[in-house]
Amino acid sequence: MTAVSLSSLNAATKAELVAALGDIYEHAPWVAEAVSARRPFASLAALHEAMIAAVRAAPAEQRLALIKGHPDLAGKTARAGTMTTDSIAEQASAGLDALSDKELADFHRLNDAYKSKFGIPFIVCVRRHTKDSILRQFGRRLENDAAAETDTSLAEIFHIAALRLDQRVEAPERLKVHGRLSTHVLDTHSGRPAEGVAVELIELSENGDPRMIARTRTNRDGRTDDPLIGGRPVPIGRYELRFTMADYYARAGAPLADPPFLDLIPVRFSVAEPEGHYHVPLLVTPWSYSTYRGS
Amino acid sequence: MTAVSLSSLNAATKAELVAALGDIYEHAPWVAEAVSARRPFASLAALHEAMIAAVRAAPAEQRLALIKGHPDLAGKTARAGTMTTDSIAEQASAGLDALSDKELADFHRLNDAYKSKFGIPFIVCVRRHTKDSILRQFGRRLENDAAAETDTSLAEIFHIAALRLDQRVEAPERLKVHGRLSTHVLDTHSGRPAEGVAVELIELSENGDPRMIARTRTNRDGRTDDPLIGGRPVPIGRYELRFTMADYYARAGAPLADPPFLDLIPVRFSVAEPEGHYHVPLLVTPWSYSTYRGS
Amino acid sequence: MTAVSLSSLNAATKAELVAALGDIYEHAPWVAEAVSARRPFASLAALHEAMIAAVRAAPAEQRLALIKGHPDLAGKTARAGTMTTDSIAEQASAGLDALSDKELADFHRLNDAYKSKFGIPFIVCVRRHTKDSILRQFGRRLENDAAAETDTSLAEIFHIAALRLDQRVEAPERLKVHGRLSTHVLDTHSGRPAEGVAVELIELSENGDPRMIARTRTNRDGRTDDPLIGGRPVPIGRYELRFTMADYYARAGAPLADPPFLDLIPVRFSVAEPEGHYHVPLLVTPWSYSTYRGS
Amino acid sequence: MTAVSLSSLNAATKAELVAALGDIYEHAPWVAEAVSARRPFASLAALHEAMIAAVRAAPAEQRLALIKGHPDLAGKTARAGTMTTDSIAEQASAGLDALSDKELADFHRLNDAYKSKFGIPFIVCVRRHTKDSILRQFGRRLENDAAAETDTSLAEIFHIAALRLDQRVEAPERLKVHGRLSTHVLDTHSGRPAEGVAVELIELSENGDPRMIARTRTNRDGRTDDPLIGGRPVPIGRYELRFTMADYYARAGAPLADPPFLDLIPVRFSVAEPEGHYHVPLLVTPWSYSTYRGS
Repeated sequence: MTAVSLSSLNAATKAELVAALGDIYEHAPWVAEAVSARRPFASLAALHEAMIAAVRAAPAEQRLALIKGHPDLAGKTARAGTMTTDSIAEQASAGLDALSDKELADFHRLNDAYKSKFGIPFIVCVRRHTKDSILRQFGRRLENDAAAETDTSLAEIFHIAALRLDQRVEAPERLKVHGRLSTHVLDTHSGRPAEGVAVELIELSENGDPRMIARTRTNRDGRTDDPLIGGRPVPIGRYELRFTMADYYARAGAPLADPPFLDLIPVRFSVAEPEGHYHVPLLVTPWSYSTYRGS
Repeated sequence: MTAVSLSSLNAATKAELVAALGDIYEHAPWVAEAVSARRPFASLAALHEAMIAAVRAAPAEQRLALIKGHPDLAGKTARAGTMTTDSIAEQASAGLDALSDKELADFHRLNDAYKSKFGIPFIVCVRRHTKDSILRQFGRRLENDAAAETDTSLAEIFHIAALRLDQRVEAPERLKVHGRLSTHVLDTHSGRPAEGVAVELIELSENGDPRMIARTRTNRDGRTDDPLIGGRPVPIGRYELRFTMADYYARAGAPLADPPFLDLIPVRFSVAEPEGHYHVPLLVTPWSYSTYRGS
Repeated sequence: MTAVSLSSLNAATKAELVAALGDIYEHAPWVAEAVSARRPFASLAALHEAMIAAVRAAPAEQRLALIKGHPDLAGKTARAGTMTTDSIAEQASAGLDALSDKELADFHRLNDAYKSKFGIPFIVCVRRHTKDSILRQFGRRLENDAAAETDTSLAEIFHIAALRLDQRVEAPERLKVHGRLSTHVLDTHSGRPAEGVAVELIELSENGDPRMIARTRTNRDGRTDDPLIGGRPVPIGRYELRFTMADYYARAGAPLADPPFLDLIPVRFSVAEPEGHYHVPLLVTPWSYSTYRGS
Repeated sequence: MTAVSLSSLNAATKAELVAALGDIYEHAPWVAEAVSARRPFASLAALHEAMIAAVRAAPAEQRLALIKGHPDLAGKTARAGTMTTDSIAEQASAGLDALSDKELADFHRLNDAYKSKFGIPFIVCVRRHTKDSILRQFGRRLENDAAAETDTSLAEIFHIAALRLDQRVEAPERLKVHGRLSTHVLDTHSGRPAEGVAVELIELSENGDPRMIARTRTNRDGRTDDPLIGGRPVPIGRYELRFTMADYYARAGAPLADPPFLDLIPVRFSVAEPEGHYHVPLLVTPWSYSTYRGS
């Protein structure tokens, strides 16, 4: 699917607009229709806000239908092949397309409990989450009352719409829907950036297997050429960075114990703000290290 | 087996001395006999040095017999029930009494390779090692020549003897055969020791399962009441300390992200000097930490 | 003045008790008299508490006379030679015996303002303060009302009495009137304590000259043989520790820039709790350092 | 003096070229003349290299005359008003236009010793130095032999020429003659950049007064809007960064001791590579801090 420019959308016919943005809201082209007359939009943010306003201004039954139009997470809709292209890609991003039988059973059990309590599918913006944090949300939100869940569902739908708009529409100024996870290895033994250090980023899971998210080496500036996660939200969840230091120090000729005091250094942390910038550096010698949330 | 005092050994008959110390050297009571006339010993170190000197002064065939008198590691001797009490306890300390089939096969393969190359059993002071470092020693020492292995075997036998003397003989000044592994959690968020932090010490293994070595909580001074390892050598090997910080900070009322940026903090390191003091502290806030080999 | 034991005081005649402790409270032997019948005291703390209780139980005029019996700080009494031996030593500890003309003028001005507002001399336990913090107290306490100043004066008199008792009476358990200031230099470049590092402790002053409090070198354990301040309160005030690192690293053969990136490392901090333990270590490489309030 | 572009110099007449670049080498327009026929230059670096080659290719007497054409540092030439405009600005940059009588006497004494030993003026690229490091160079270079000093003088003249070219000629790619000194304050108490922290950069001097180089506040990212030193070499010398933290933490509502444990934090370091990037950050809580040479 190729992106269209905001200016061409501003100039398009109503039918073209709905063709382009009709599926920003799942099975709800009426949202795009509703904002057609509000054009031109000065920015992508203005378009996004107008669509949100249209949803809020719609009759309650229409909003409920919008909510009900969403597929189950990891659900039968997916396997029945009736899910939208966007939903398929989104659910895959969190690994929901490759659950173990046990995890699948958990999702079904929670989905059923949720639907039987609230009468709507459980909606969450999966691009902002890991499998584990979705399960945690499930548990927490089952404690809510119906009104709170209607609000939460809409908030999640707006997050989903923002990410779809960001992918679908080109505009000079982007929506603030991306986060960033980066690192930096500084060798305070020799007072310079540590080049060539093997770095891995792993997503941890309470019950499932860890998932390798990125595997790279530091460059001359001690950074990675690309952020470990960038151009998308950083999914809420638990992670481990792994730095392999003994090779680096052996190459650098630093005197090391046998075996070296420090070799693979794990740094475990959680992400709570998917749109935040998580800079997690390592200041390291053969005998010490520090890490912190930087900026 | 109860300990005897150095002074009573100094005053004992030769027969009593041999009864008390005859098995310091495996199946070699002649070492104890040889030092009887050198009494009195001013210190345990003097006794230990005299026994070493007796071994070195013995005819080569007697030294070879001493070496050959040692059991295989994790070997058939153990299962045949002919190993000395000391050897049984020593091999258990490194977990050699509970190997998986795969590990048992590795040990037998290496034992056989070693015996067929050198004609002697592979001897290592297991109390100074973990299973992993014993396997690493095996691999390295198979590269040696016979003369080097005779020297290394004797050096290991002297380490074994020192640890047996340390357990068996009471004396005002102890042999320097113990190491120490300790930690300290300092909360630099509030400028005071972190009390009540759950701490675990795990021994890591390349192929086998991790072994829990100690599980405790920090006291009012941010330390553990007892060292994590003390009163014995710190086995050469890889370890992970795990500090559970989010509970601590939640109790302390510190503002935390949801989920907290830091929760379980793993600190992975290796020990190379079993008689060394490894102090591995954690300086920590909800957003940063440092660790290092301290003193 | 030699110390007497608590047990001998418990056994003494009333006259002997008053001879020994009559000047714990300045020009007020009646406090010692009042506790004579409460003997024996199980501990020094019990004796101290009894004397405090006696002061609190005395008629208001007697307490006022006690307060008024104290000399001016840095005042004319001192130069008239009518100050008690204890007061002379105490005032010297904070450098009040060696003020510049400007500082002397400040003290006199504040003393006069205080006396004219409250009708009593300004009392502070100088052993718990530096010159600067005394001046700061002066400024703050001039804002109080008379009742608050009576209370504060008594609290200071009790601090003074505790420190005098601590010096004068020997007992198995000491009063908790001492603090401690210590340091530790850990070379995280080589993973061991930094030996032989020159360390200075300086008391800083807003207007006056800095005062050298201690000048020493670290020992094999990276610590100083004696605490930088110990066996007495750590005076409230501002300090600077100075560590001379380039010499150390040059001796250790570490590669250094020319000039070295780090040489004299100043660590500036303030003490707020005179009875606290201030451990201020330095973790250092040729290119980095950390410091913190430790324990 | 306005800059000319490299392309216009490539297109200029020889006379125009010499008019523009005749004083890149002090009182030696022949260097510019010598490179005229080598045009066009693909880059500023190529022009600089060509001028260096012309100096090296000139007869020894001409090179000596070039060396001798340089003014004394802080010398009589300056006060006689015969120094070039460039030299005047350069000497002022290191504070050589405002020496105390004592410092002036030192410079004259060293100048005289140097001239009497080598017969040439002492030449140093002052923009790469502080007053203190110039004095240190003086002392060291007086130990050299004449041949070494001829080489060193030329090397310094080339540094001077590079900086003059950098200021005088516009080109797409700049010469690598600038360094950078920057900082960053990260509040690891709250896990975010510290905004609004007062930062000062001071140049320290062995004998003279400290010089304030920059005084600013950190921005929202915990950095300063401009580097503390940028767009020029970072002069070799000793510096102190001063961070005023207690105000920041008081505004942030962090619980502080009275007086706060940390307030003004001095970080003292030396610069050895004027073209290097010195990033000297502060990771700080109310009870701890770290600093290091970063990148």
